[in-house]
Amino acid sequence: MSDDQEQVAADIAAVEQANTAFYEAMERGDLDALSGLWLPGENLTISCVHPGWPVLSGRGEVLRSYALIMANTEYIQFFLTDVGVSMTGDTALVTCTENILSGGPAEDGGELGPLVGQLVVATNVFRRTEDGWKLWSHHGSPVLTESEDEDEDESPS
Amino acid sequence: MSDDQEQVAADIAAVEQANTAFYEAMERGDLDALSGLWLPGENLTISCVHPGWPVLSGRGEVLRSYALIMANTEYIQFFLTDVGVSMTGDTALVTCTENILSGGPAEDGGELGPLVGQLVVATNVFRRTEDGWKLWSHHGSPVLTESEDEDEDESPS
Repeated sequence: MSDDQEQVAADIAAVEQANTAFYEAMERGDLDALSGLWLPGENLTISCVHPGWPVLSGRGEVLRSYALIMANTEYIQFFLTDVGVSMTGDTALVTCTENILSGGPAEDGGELGPLVGQLVVATNVFRRTEDGWKLWSHHGSPVLTESEDEDEDESPS
Repeated sequence: MSDDQEQVAADIAAVEQANTAFYEAMERGDLDALSGLWLPGENLTISCVHPGWPVLSGRGEVLRSYALIMANTEYIQFFLTDVGVSMTGDTALVTCTENILSGGPAEDGGELGPLVGQLVVATNVFRRTEDGWKLWSHHGSPVLTESEDEDEDESPS
């Protein structure tokens, strides 16, 4: 590979790693790690759309939403598929499918609530900083159009 | 204003204009105009998420989806609110709320089908080119959650 090609390959790997770290921080419920993955300061306004939510803007609003989600999530796991990276200069755009398995706190007693599967697609925009690639925008949305293969559960018993 | 400030103000105005042109092309059902608003060529892969859809990537897939939507939309109007622009260098990120009023073809006869209102939020990423600001990514998603304003007064009446 040429030096240029090596640099592009290294950049793409670094962006994918930042994208993975974002979901791993969610899985661990680690708000500090998550906060550190978003662009710092106020030079660029960050924005975030959780599936079905309105737009949240600025670090205050965005990070408060994650604190709220983490407080109400006992268990969450992301299986990422279809990860695509498109980049130019210091901006990278990642699209991926988040196959989510999550559970809230049980309503009574200390056990885990029921697990729920969810299909979400995300567009994540990253900026290159001296401290690595940081999130500028996350937009996640539910996938509603696929044909529902519910037949298997619907046989009469 | 300083020259710098004037330049930033002019850039933001140009980005907002490109964003408006995108929705106006949809309203007119003008696929040619819409195609010209997305990044040309294959240097940067464009991506698009329609509300409830999976990710579409590349000009072929994205523009075919718009042809399909336009063929099934007799009438559509976007009332944009909460338009926010965040930009750096040659990349701009626009968030907005699309208050949509649309109608499909009537099922029988030549009249317009029933009009449907829809609340969608979008993150639109633009790149500066010699031919103006062009779309790199559009991600739209339905707003499904209750407005936070409903918590404000829970006193019994």
